[in-house]
Amino acid sequence: MATPAKEPHVVIVGGGFGGLNAAKALRDAPVQVTLVDRTNHHLFQPLLYQVATASLSPADIAVPIRSVLSRQRNARVLLGEVTRVDLAGRRITVDGDTLDYDYLILAVGAANNYFGHEEWARFAPALKNLDEALTIRERMLLAFEAAEREQDPAVRRRLLTFVVIGGGATGVEMAGAFAELARYILARDFRALDPSLSRVLLVEIGQRILQAFPERLSASAEEQLTSLGVEVIKGRRFRTIDEQGVEFEDGERLPAATVIWAAGVRGTPLAHALGVELDRIGRVKVEPDCSLPGHPTTFAIGDMAMLRDRNGVDVPGLSPAAIQEGRFVAGCILGDLTGRPRGQFAYRDKGTMATIGRSRAIAKVGRLQMSGMLAWLAWLGVHVLFLIGFKNRFAVMFAWMWQYITFKRGARLITGHTTRAALPAAATAVAPPAPRPSARSAVVDAVSGGA
Amino acid sequence: MATPAKEPHVVIVGGGFGGLNAAKALRDAPVQVTLVDRTNHHLFQPLLYQVATASLSPADIAVPIRSVLSRQRNARVLLGEVTRVDLAGRRITVDGDTLDYDYLILAVGAANNYFGHEEWARFAPALKNLDEALTIRERMLLAFEAAEREQDPAVRRRLLTFVVIGGGATGVEMAGAFAELARYILARDFRALDPSLSRVLLVEIGQRILQAFPERLSASAEEQLTSLGVEVIKGRRFRTIDEQGVEFEDGERLPAATVIWAAGVRGTPLAHALGVELDRIGRVKVEPDCSLPGHPTTFAIGDMAMLRDRNGVDVPGLSPAAIQEGRFVAGCILGDLTGRPRGQFAYRDKGTMATIGRSRAIAKVGRLQMSGMLAWLAWLGVHVLFLIGFKNRFAVMFAWMWQYITFKRGARLITGHTTRAALPAAATAVAPPAPRPSARSAVVDAVSGGA
Repeated sequence: MATPAKEPHVVIVGGGFGGLNAAKALRDAPVQVTLVDRTNHHLFQPLLYQVATASLSPADIAVPIRSVLSRQRNARVLLGEVTRVDLAGRRITVDGDTLDYDYLILAVGAANNYFGHEEWARFAPALKNLDEALTIRERMLLAFEAAEREQDPAVRRRLLTFVVIGGGATGVEMAGAFAELARYILARDFRALDPSLSRVLLVEIGQRILQAFPERLSASAEEQLTSLGVEVIKGRRFRTIDEQGVEFEDGERLPAATVIWAAGVRGTPLAHALGVELDRIGRVKVEPDCSLPGHPTTFAIGDMAMLRDRNGVDVPGLSPAAIQEGRFVAGCILGDLTGRPRGQFAYRDKGTMATIGRSRAIAKVGRLQMSGMLAWLAWLGVHVLFLIGFKNRFAVMFAWMWQYITFKRGARLITGHTTRAALPAAATAVAPPAPRPSARSAVVDAVSGGA
Repeated sequence: MATPAKEPHVVIVGGGFGGLNAAKALRDAPVQVTLVDRTNHHLFQPLLYQVATASLSPADIAVPIRSVLSRQRNARVLLGEVTRVDLAGRRITVDGDTLDYDYLILAVGAANNYFGHEEWARFAPALKNLDEALTIRERMLLAFEAAEREQDPAVRRRLLTFVVIGGGATGVEMAGAFAELARYILARDFRALDPSLSRVLLVEIGQRILQAFPERLSASAEEQLTSLGVEVIKGRRFRTIDEQGVEFEDGERLPAATVIWAAGVRGTPLAHALGVELDRIGRVKVEPDCSLPGHPTTFAIGDMAMLRDRNGVDVPGLSPAAIQEGRFVAGCILGDLTGRPRGQFAYRDKGTMATIGRSRAIAKVGRLQMSGMLAWLAWLGVHVLFLIGFKNRFAVMFAWMWQYITFKRGARLITGHTTRAALPAAATAVAPPAPRPSARSAVVDAVSGGA
C-alpha cells in the first residue's frame, strides 16, 4: 500500500462504540489509522436483544465498518483477529501478520462471564454478537415448533419455559421481549399452544434487579415485568445448567428448553495476555488518561477498561462511556502531536435507561426518574437517534411502528441447517425428545383425527 | 388437538408458491389442511439473489408460514421433513411420525443439479434457500476482505474473480449483481482494491444465455451484461471445479475464489422415492389435472412436476405457474367434494422477465418485448407487488430506493463463526493462502510503512 511517509501509525483494535469513535475523531489528524476487527461490522449492541427475539434483522442494527470509514482518507480497515500484543516492541499480531504501531487503542470489549462454568455456555447462550443473537432466535423458534407437535404436557411445558439468568439491563430486556413474544404474538400462530402454557422467568442472584438504578426504579421495573407475566426470582443461585434446564442450589429443578445467560461479563483473553494489572473481573486498570500504566502510547477503553475518572466515578460499561473514551483518547493523541498536555477523563452521565416491553421502561436522567410509557418513549427516541447511519435508523423505526400497530414480528426466521448442524446442543435441547412411543402415537392420532 | 370429525384431511408438503397458494385456496373448503415444510418460512425466491449479493436481508423476502396462515382456521402448520410417502396407504412420514391423508399435494420444488458432480457443490454453492444465499454472501464478502490484505497480484486476482455458471435468469441476475457490487459499491470501501482488478464471468454451456427468451432479448441481455463489465462465455464446458477455481474442458484454468452454480435443477430425493414415472431431470410426470397417474387424490405441482397443459404447452418452472397450479388443485379437491368434474390445467403466461442490474433488464409480455430501463421498471413493479405481505413489500421498496440513491448496500454482514466453522471449504477458498513468507512480509512492510 502506498502511504505517505512518517505519519504516526495509530492502530485501533475493535470496531465497537469506543474504537469506531476514536477512529472518527482522528479524521483530520496527521496520522494513519488502521482499525482491526474480527467481524466486518459495527454493532448497535443495545438493540441486539431485538434480533435475538425476532423483532429486528441483523442488518437493521449493524453496519459494515468499511462503510462507516469509507470517506475517511487516513483510515483503513482490516478484518482479522489480534492474537498477540507486544507492548515493549509496539507491535501486534493479526492472524499471523505483525503490525507496528506508534499508538495503540485497545477497544475489544468484554467476554461472557460464566464464573468458571464454561460448560454452561452450550445450554445457556449469551448475547454478545450477531451469531449469538441468531442462535438464541433459532433456539426459541424451534422450541415453539417442537411444542406445537408435542403431546406430553410436561415436555411441552419444558419447551415453553424460558429462563433468563441475570437481572441487569440485558436480562430484563430479554425477559420482557420473550414474554411479549410468547403471550401476544406467537400464541396466535400456533394451533395447539395456549399462551398460559408459556413461562418466562428472570433469575437474579442478588436481592434486586437492575442494581445500577435507584431502588425505586428497580421496584417499578419488577412490577412492570410482572404485569407482562414474567416471574422474577431473586436471591437464588444455581447448582447446574444442562440440556434439561436449570437446577437451583437447594435442589429444585426448573425444566426449560431455552436458557439465556445475561449474568455478567469479564475481560477477554486478549486483556489477560497483555501482562498488565487487571481488576477482579479481568478489566485492564488504566490511568486517568485511559493509557496503560507504564505505556503512555497504549490505551484501553470501553468495556475492557477499569477506570476511576477525574471526579472519582467508576466509569460504567455502557456505550456512551465507550464513545466518550474513544473521543478522549483521540484527543490525547492529537495533543501529543501538538505539544498539548493530556487531561484526565471525566465521564458525563447523560442518563441511563432500560426497556421492558411495549410502553414499559425505566429511565434516570440526572435526578429525574421515569417509568412506564414516558420512560419507554424516551428510550425509543434515544435508541433510534443513536443508531449509526440514516438507513438503519429509518428501517428500525419502520419495523417498530409496524410491530406496534400489528403485534407482529418480522424476523421470525429459522435459517441455518448449517447452524443447526454446528449446534448439536441446541438441536438436542429443543428437538422433540427421544422416541416415547405413547406420546408419538398420540401426535399421530391427534393429527389424523382431523381427517 | 381437538378437531371437528370426518372432514377430509388435505396434507400439503412444501410452503413455497405452489403449496402455500393451494392452502390459501382451501380457506373456505370443508377440509382440514396440514401444511408441512422443513423450514418455517415461505420464501420469495425470485429475490433470493439479492440476499446473496447483500442488497436485502433474509427477513425482507421471507415470511413465517404460520403468519401467512394464522387466520385460516382450517389450516395447521408442521415444521418437519417428509421422509416417506406411502401412496397406497395414503400416509406420509414426517420426522418419524406418520400422518394419514385423504388428499396429498406435493409441492417440494427442485434440487440443485450438478449433473453427477455433487463434489462441486462444496466449491460452487447454488442458490435455492436462505442458507445458501447467506453462504454465498459470506464467501463473497470474505473474498473482498482477503483481497484487501493480499499482496500477491495473482492471488488477489483470484480472490476478486467471480464465476457464475449457468446463463438462466438466476445466473444472469447473480452476475449482474456481482458486477455492480464489485464495480460501484465495494470498490469505494477498500483502500487497496481497484475496481479494474475484479472480474465477473458468466459461463453458459449453450450457445446463448436466457434461452427461454426470444433471441433478440437474449442478445440484448448479453449486451447489457457486457456494459456492466461482465464477461459472457458461451458454449464451453468444464472439466472440474475445485477450491482454486474452474478448469474448462480444453484444459484452460480460470482461478476464482467465488464460483456460483446456477446451471440447473433436478427432482428432489422425495420425487425419486415416489416410485412413479419421472422425466429426464427427475420431475414427476403428472396428469393434465396435476394428479399422479393412478393416484387421483395425490397431486404434484410447481417445480417438481412435469406437465404438458391443455393447450400443449410445457408448463415452465416459474413461480406464476406454481401459484396457478396450487389454486387449480385446490379447485379440483373442492370439485370432488361438491361433485363437479375436474378440468385440465391451462397455464396463463403473464409474461417473463429477467433483471440484470440497475436500469437493466429484459421482459416479454405476450408479443411485447422490452429491454433496458423500461423492462427494469416493469420488473421492479411486478416483484414488489408480488411480495407476500405489506411489511415486506414496503421494506424492500425502501431498501431499493435507498440503494438507488446512495449506491450502498445495506446487508453486507459477515455473520457466523458457526457458519464459517461449518464450511471449511469456504474458509479455505477465501482465507489468505498458506504462509508464503515473502508476500506476508510485504503486507507488513506496506502497512507499517505508513507509520
